[in-house]
Amino acid sequence: MSSFPSTASQVLVVGSVALDSVETPFGKADDVLGGSGTYFSSSASHFAPVQLVGVVGDDYPIELLQPLAARGVDLAGLEKVSGSSFRWRGRYRHDLNSAETLETHLGVFSNFRPNIPDQFRKAPFVFLANIDPRLQLQVLEQVEKPRLVACDTMNFWIESRRPELIELLGHVDLITLNDGEARQLTEHSNLVQAARWILDKGPKHVLIKKGEHGAFMFTRDSVFFAPAYPLESVFDPTGAGDSFAGGFIGSLAASGDLSDASMRRAVVVGSAMGSFAVEKFSNGRLLEITRADIDARVREFRQLVAFDEDFSA
Amino acid sequence: MSSFPSTASQVLVVGSVALDSVETPFGKADDVLGGSGTYFSSSASHFAPVQLVGVVGDDYPIELLQPLAARGVDLAGLEKVSGSSFRWRGRYRHDLNSAETLETHLGVFSNFRPNIPDQFRKAPFVFLANIDPRLQLQVLEQVEKPRLVACDTMNFWIESRRPELIELLGHVDLITLNDGEARQLTEHSNLVQAARWILDKGPKHVLIKKGEHGAFMFTRDSVFFAPAYPLESVFDPTGAGDSFAGGFIGSLAASGDLSDASMRRAVVVGSAMGSFAVEKFSNGRLLEITRADIDARVREFRQLVAFDEDFSA
Repeated sequence: MSSFPSTASQVLVVGSVALDSVETPFGKADDVLGGSGTYFSSSASHFAPVQLVGVVGDDYPIELLQPLAARGVDLAGLEKVSGSSFRWRGRYRHDLNSAETLETHLGVFSNFRPNIPDQFRKAPFVFLANIDPRLQLQVLEQVEKPRLVACDTMNFWIESRRPELIELLGHVDLITLNDGEARQLTEHSNLVQAARWILDKGPKHVLIKKGEHGAFMFTRDSVFFAPAYPLESVFDPTGAGDSFAGGFIGSLAASGDLSDASMRRAVVVGSAMGSFAVEKFSNGRLLEITRADIDARVREFRQLVAFDEDFSA
Repeated sequence: MSSFPSTASQVLVVGSVALDSVETPFGKADDVLGGSGTYFSSSASHFAPVQLVGVVGDDYPIELLQPLAARGVDLAGLEKVSGSSFRWRGRYRHDLNSAETLETHLGVFSNFRPNIPDQFRKAPFVFLANIDPRLQLQVLEQVEKPRLVACDTMNFWIESRRPELIELLGHVDLITLNDGEARQLTEHSNLVQAARWILDKGPKHVLIKKGEHGAFMFTRDSVFFAPAYPLESVFDPTGAGDSFAGGFIGSLAASGDLSDASMRRAVVVGSAMGSFAVEKFSNGRLLEITRADIDARVREFRQLVAFDEDFSA
């Protein structure tokens, strides 16, 4: 099922594997495959071999992960421990802009200590999904000179683990976070200023996700923007950010090219994967699309922003 | 001072000429040049000859309009009548996203009945700025076969003049409105669906402005998106939408080209002009920039979204 080039680099992701229950104006789903680690893996697996590190309880229906294994995601780093699995229950109202969390049950995830298997430690591309910055730092102590380390975070860690998060920034090449989180972390309401604040802490790239309003990639020298794809019907926004990250890192791992041009393409690939993620519940759409679907959507992105600046006016 | 080609078409705008008092986190300005008609004219005058129709009271400091006249804006359609001028007082908080209106005094604007001078009636490009849809319809009775008629509107008219606004949609080629207004008018929260609803009422183009999040142009066959320019400091957001419209219509009038490629360029030119408008109070920045400044910013927009979709991944 995998269509990525044999030269594609390994991608290691450390994140959550959850059971999600979601209500949207269009329907509901109970106990479906969820968690940042699964969305990232489903997305990245279209481009490169993925190694997933996470934890589930002994109640987790392992068959939910079969489609990931079938896509070549290596689950050797997924611990199964005694206790209940991480469950999230959320609801989206009419505008689909923000999730209302109805219930979070961390279960075994609250004692998660990432243990990177030996055979995963040389992965050239590492994504530290949204977990405690102390754990993200522990992962970095276990990997060997990756070419690119990216991390995600969230408001909870910005509030409760600020010093550790800022320490982490000194050890990653790239951070993805949403616009509200960027403002909260940096105390700058202007995103250009917020990005500069983060760049000063270490990362060479800052990816600010604005959900339906697209994403910015800032470096010291340039700004790139990719819109969100204007979907006629957004079904379930859960996992869009992690799917974006999976497409972004996957695209880079596939080409092995970290030039500015390649990073820009990767943002667009990430945007495309985020747009697929929201078309069905859970990982449903990510697990059914083909490489042709992805390529077609990337071409649509090109059309969406294409213009000729040499105007005679 | 004008740099537009001699072949540029006349642009007629009907809108407000006001005295604005604005407070932002960065300072305040009292009784400065304001109103949709002035922002549009200052912006469009970089590209084409502009004819402005509006009304002021006998208290209006006419010298405020001198810079527009110096830029070739024809003020023969600006009536001066007995009474007080339209004044708006507003404040922007830290995030600059939305104006808080502190005071609106319509004055002579409340009895405005647009009277289009004979020499303005053949203008090929017509912009009906944000006024009562009944007045917008009255303008259309006075003009002679323009090539392109565009209108703007706002929440107040969507609530209070809905039937007239929908009637107007049958008589315009293009409408500009912001995302909230599009949702309010169409009762669709999804912008793709909202745009289709409007297209079904008549306009061939729907331009949905999302402020700092950019702008979409929808037609029956295509979607184009231009981001807002990521400014490091937004000084005063007042007039950004009308400046956008001025750049958009001005660009089309300059080239006379209504192809899809030309319309896309025009959206980017509009975005560039909107980005200049917010850099100073009032029309300050619009009236000092040169054609070289505009061209440079349009090139920056190209860089902002440029990517190569032929990825090897």
